Amino acid sequence: MKPSLDAIFRPRSIAVVGASTRKGTLGREIFDKLLAADFNGPVYPVHPKAEFVHSVKAYKSVSAIPDSVELAVIVVRKELVLDVVKECARCGVKGVVVITAGFKETGPKGAALEQQIVEVIRAHGMRMVGPNCMGIINTEPDVRLDSTFAPTVPPRGNIGLVSQSGALGQTILEHADELNLGISMFVSIGNKPDVSGNDLLEYWRDDPSVGVILMYLESFGDPMRFIQLAREVSKKKPIVVVKSGRTVSGARAASSHTGALAGTDVAYDALFKQCGIIRADTINEMFEVAMGLANLPLPRGNRVAIITNAGGPGIMAADACEGAGLQVVPLGRETRETLSKQLPAEASVENPVDLLAGATPEDFQATLQAVLSDEQVDSAIVIFVAPIITDPIAVAAKISAVAHSFDKPVLGCFMGVKGVAPGVEELHRHRIPVYPFPESAARALAAMVRYSRWLRKEPGAMARFDVHEGAAQAVIARVRAERREQLTFSEVAEILRAYGLPVAETVTVRTKAELLDASRKMRYPLVLKVSSSAIIHKSEIGGVRLDLKSEAELVSAFEEMKKTLGAPRQGAPALAFVVQEMIPDGREVIMGLHTVPGFGTLIMFGLGGIHVEVLKDVAFRIVPITDREAEEMISEIKGFAILEGVRGEKPVAFDVLKSALLRLSQLAVDFPEIRELDLNPFMAFPEAEKCRIVDARLRVE
Amino acid sequence: MKPSLDAIFRPRSIAVVGASTRKGTLGREIFDKLLAADFNGPVYPVHPKAEFVHSVKAYKSVSAIPDSVELAVIVVRKELVLDVVKECARCGVKGVVVITAGFKETGPKGAALEQQIVEVIRAHGMRMVGPNCMGIINTEPDVRLDSTFAPTVPPRGNIGLVSQSGALGQTILEHADELNLGISMFVSIGNKPDVSGNDLLEYWRDDPSVGVILMYLESFGDPMRFIQLAREVSKKKPIVVVKSGRTVSGARAASSHTGALAGTDVAYDALFKQCGIIRADTINEMFEVAMGLANLPLPRGNRVAIITNAGGPGIMAADACEGAGLQVVPLGRETRETLSKQLPAEASVENPVDLLAGATPEDFQATLQAVLSDEQVDSAIVIFVAPIITDPIAVAAKISAVAHSFDKPVLGCFMGVKGVAPGVEELHRHRIPVYPFPESAARALAAMVRYSRWLRKEPGAMARFDVHEGAAQAVIARVRAERREQLTFSEVAEILRAYGLPVAETVTVRTKAELLDASRKMRYPLVLKVSSSAIIHKSEIGGVRLDLKSEAELVSAFEEMKKTLGAPRQGAPALAFVVQEMIPDGREVIMGLHTVPGFGTLIMFGLGGIHVEVLKDVAFRIVPITDREAEEMISEIKGFAILEGVRGEKPVAFDVLKSALLRLSQLAVDFPEIRELDLNPFMAFPEAEKCRIVDARLRVE
Repeated sequence: MKPSLDAIFRPRSIAVVGASTRKGTLGREIFDKLLAADFNGPVYPVHPKAEFVHSVKAYKSVSAIPDSVELAVIVVRKELVLDVVKECARCGVKGVVVITAGFKETGPKGAALEQQIVEVIRAHGMRMVGPNCMGIINTEPDVRLDSTFAPTVPPRGNIGLVSQSGALGQTILEHADELNLGISMFVSIGNKPDVSGNDLLEYWRDDPSVGVILMYLESFGDPMRFIQLAREVSKKKPIVVVKSGRTVSGARAASSHTGALAGTDVAYDALFKQCGIIRADTINEMFEVAMGLANLPLPRGNRVAIITNAGGPGIMAADACEGAGLQVVPLGRETRETLSKQLPAEASVENPVDLLAGATPEDFQATLQAVLSDEQVDSAIVIFVAPIITDPIAVAAKISAVAHSFDKPVLGCFMGVKGVAPGVEELHRHRIPVYPFPESAARALAAMVRYSRWLRKEPGAMARFDVHEGAAQAVIARVRAERREQLTFSEVAEILRAYGLPVAETVTVRTKAELLDASRKMRYPLVLKVSSSAIIHKSEIGGVRLDLKSEAELVSAFEEMKKTLGAPRQGAPALAFVVQEMIPDGREVIMGLHTVPGFGTLIMFGLGGIHVEVLKDVAFRIVPITDREAEEMISEIKGFAILEGVRGEKPVAFDVLKSALLRLSQLAVDFPEIRELDLNPFMAFPEAEKCRIVDARLRVE
Repeated sequence: MKPSLDAIFRPRSIAVVGASTRKGTLGREIFDKLLAADFNGPVYPVHPKAEFVHSVKAYKSVSAIPDSVELAVIVVRKELVLDVVKECARCGVKGVVVITAGFKETGPKGAALEQQIVEVIRAHGMRMVGPNCMGIINTEPDVRLDSTFAPTVPPRGNIGLVSQSGALGQTILEHADELNLGISMFVSIGNKPDVSGNDLLEYWRDDPSVGVILMYLESFGDPMRFIQLAREVSKKKPIVVVKSGRTVSGARAASSHTGALAGTDVAYDALFKQCGIIRADTINEMFEVAMGLANLPLPRGNRVAIITNAGGPGIMAADACEGAGLQVVPLGRETRETLSKQLPAEASVENPVDLLAGATPEDFQATLQAVLSDEQVDSAIVIFVAPIITDPIAVAAKISAVAHSFDKPVLGCFMGVKGVAPGVEELHRHRIPVYPFPESAARALAAMVRYSRWLRKEPGAMARFDVHEGAAQAVIARVRAERREQLTFSEVAEILRAYGLPVAETVTVRTKAELLDASRKMRYPLVLKVSSSAIIHKSEIGGVRLDLKSEAELVSAFEEMKKTLGAPRQGAPALAFVVQEMIPDGREVIMGLHTVPGFGTLIMFGLGGIHVEVLKDVAFRIVPITDREAEEMISEIKGFAILEGVRGEKPVAFDVLKSALLRLSQLAVDFPEIRELDLNPFMAFPEAEKCRIVDARLRVE
């Protein structure tokens, strides 16, 4: 187990190595910031020559400090960092924050130097944030640690904030400050060879001072650990992530549909969805959501009431809400009656409630009171556009008072800049989030609704089916022994059957005698396909013949195909074929697996044929999946209605599809060497016993 | 022709009726604002008692003013407005701006009063802005008119800005001011019974002081005139529109697919697309785009170079660009060599060009110079995240200098708040648009690229086919004479054939004798369908029999159907049937018309079957359409690849589809009484002569 991060975040004394006498330098700014934040313990400047820095006695080295030092903030030239860390280790320093840049981010030489530092850290049971970072903040009243060189001092609050980008760290702090978002801890993790985002998730999991976790990430060091931690943590507190690099997909030539559709970003989306993580596209969006999560109760449902003193913005809010999956519900009769009594005759008491431009602070108060009392309403957005007469502070004060007397989230939208600024401040003071545009409020509320749903969702169970793992193992071992990657259809079928997946009845034959023997045990019509690991797109080379109605047709197809596909080379085994029952046209679905190295295996579900090829209408998850997740995968594709049945059709046997996904998930977990698997087409019918996998491809590592 | 708006926007003298001696009232604020803006002419306060207002001699009434008054700004109580307008008319006032509210927006009584005012205005050749508005602004140096009560004074510029919402007017002005967006004219149009958005489009079309038109609209008074004007104006200057009410769709129970999919918002989207209008979802987005349009040359293509001093934001910008349809192109070899020489070894000279945190103003300068010189690059986004050392003003100055020496748009993205503020100001000074987040810059640039493409696009031609209009006319006249709305299939087929549309060969029969007679001239297999205007969903009641292979099968189907569907009531004509050639399975498409009253007729194209029913994958335009628009409709649906052919299929005969759309468009123009028409399915094949409309439904007014 790694040593606790307390050495970093809750030290009793700090040395600033590289503290400078010159104002404006990093070494000086950081030292000054630590003092200005009133750190609850001694801060020692370390400087090779100076007697004092900023009126504080300085020391030539860490070892020259007579008292014990728990945390060292290192701002020296990169060439000196290793020696300073070694000295810290000798002096019993428990944590270091390395601000200095010039390591792994600059290439192999820097990476080697960084590795040497990490080895010292590991060897001495120390922890390190950075290098190449902008420092850390802990605003807890009995710590008061701010080792950043950002000019901003964030207000105290319950947000834990991680930034992988040093450059963006300051921007992030400034925005948080502007929005009055209170920070508990902030960490710029830099190159993160030691303390990573995962470590912080773990550290903050049980830390009562952190209620909301925000992460700006550019890469994942250990996605599997992240999944494990995030699943657990997000059941206790919300995690909002901005992961940059959305459209950068793995530029591989994949031979399976699943592989072709499984870009890196799809994997991240699946990961976030399964972990209950709120994904934000931009830093701005991350803060919009955080304002709600940090300050408001979670909504119990998606029904929202909109109150406005201007028609247009009310409509825009309603549009944005509906677009984000919220419901602008009709208000209850009683609510409408209450409002009719309170408001002028011209006001609209439908949702959005339009109070008109003359609305007084009391109108806002009474209306908010009425709609929040309505059982049909889970949340409210209050829009205020400043007319010349109404005092925004009074409106804000009334909104705040009502909002805090209900256990439902209320989001403000104060439109305008200078005109409403005092009102915005008043709302901030009362911890009511306020947005400049209705669409931001809608987006934030929608994210809160999704998180709230996720919290209340039953977790689902990981099924474990009784399968013939050994049989599958044997097939894969044989393939690997032959140094092949691609399996023949009969091999895939064997594996699938071992895992209880319904493959159409299939026999491999090489000779006409075998063909006749096999076919006589089957029911016509039959299908004949070539079966070779070298031939992937069988139908394109004439290697598939469907709907053979008699033995005569079958034999003739066999002879023809043998001729067209050519004789095997000298010494090679005879070309193999499979005879298969003809499965009538059902509703085609596709399922698949795709392993992203160092990440895990993605499982895919979709409608087959053009739906996957042209419309890319598929759902992904990371294995293992729960039964609940299997159901969600099936129901979330756009063409779900087709499976439910259109034009009077009956629904397909969903249980078969669900079970198949869970069995596939189990297969993927048991055999991580499966690189790609497509079941395509999987013919689905209303009758469970008719559902059959018609074709499949599998590639191992 | 209506009188010119010059009386409103370029008056030589102004009276403020309702000017007040009390500070803080609207009447006083407006008077003061006119003086503060230094209006280039006399401003007369009109007050029933006061001798002077704000040190300016006051008059008891407009008629008491000894000199001629061209514009009256009216801020009196609503009960007095009509009399004031009448007095203005008597005194030869040419324009009025009515700030006073309480008219149409409050109900029928207010509307009646408003109508009386409009009648006075019309009778005297006057023009009126408002009532219920916040005034107008014209910043032209020789006019300097500001009659708003907004505290903001916008900078001078080339933007014409219309706000339908009085409440949002001030917010809009404030945002424009904050972004340093120069305004030429601003109009709060209020209830717009006289001066409307359309009038302003027309007025600004030829006005050289307006280069970009921004409109915040909540409703359209005359959409057809808007289409006509906007098509013309946007070829000369860009129009950006925020139209609120996106998700509010016409809640009608439509009996056609086309009608079910043609919500009001779809109509607006089609309208905007066809007029080259840039649609913004939010006011924020409108200004983001306007910053680019008002200040930059239009990009020649969609290829963008990104320059950054921080990796993460660079990736976010690349994501946002790709997501918005821009191309983050590889830089030319020469460019990369130039950059390699200039920049430190660790910098990335790929696109995005990452200059790293240490980047100097000179690095930004040299890099921007190099990428803009690259012929592969049409535009650049420059991201600056303020590190502690670099001076944002110097960076901004260098960016501006280089940007102005090229005819390519350069957009800045300065991240941070306080840290970069001086740099943002410097860019504003040089008219380089600057955004706080990369995604805003990407979105603005993408809108500019789309507009630029639209400008260069060939307009396309309105085909006029030689058709038998009279034949179609006769059918419709007959149906209307019978007071029916729904046509039988044979009637629809007759109309379609008159317009040269390929309907499957079809004969209507009532008796067995007719059936035999008709079928003997046709080729089996045949289809038999019931044909009654009362039966819409034929197949659901067993009214369709497919693939009848012989006369025996045909006759037996006929007898059965007659029995099942019941005998007609006494005296009613015998049930009619159609015999049709069986069209084999092709690729099903659907085409349709849907008239939105007071708006025009929408034409739809899509793939049939589940594509229209489940996936709603369709394209809409407003008729008449050009040949170019017909092509676009076909190619813009998601499933276009299916028509092009998947799995080795040949493409369908696109010419037939295109011609059919154009003929439908012509039909819609010729017969505005067609309320709904579905051609579904229209079977498309690679062979033009095989393409056939299999079924169709038409409803007239």
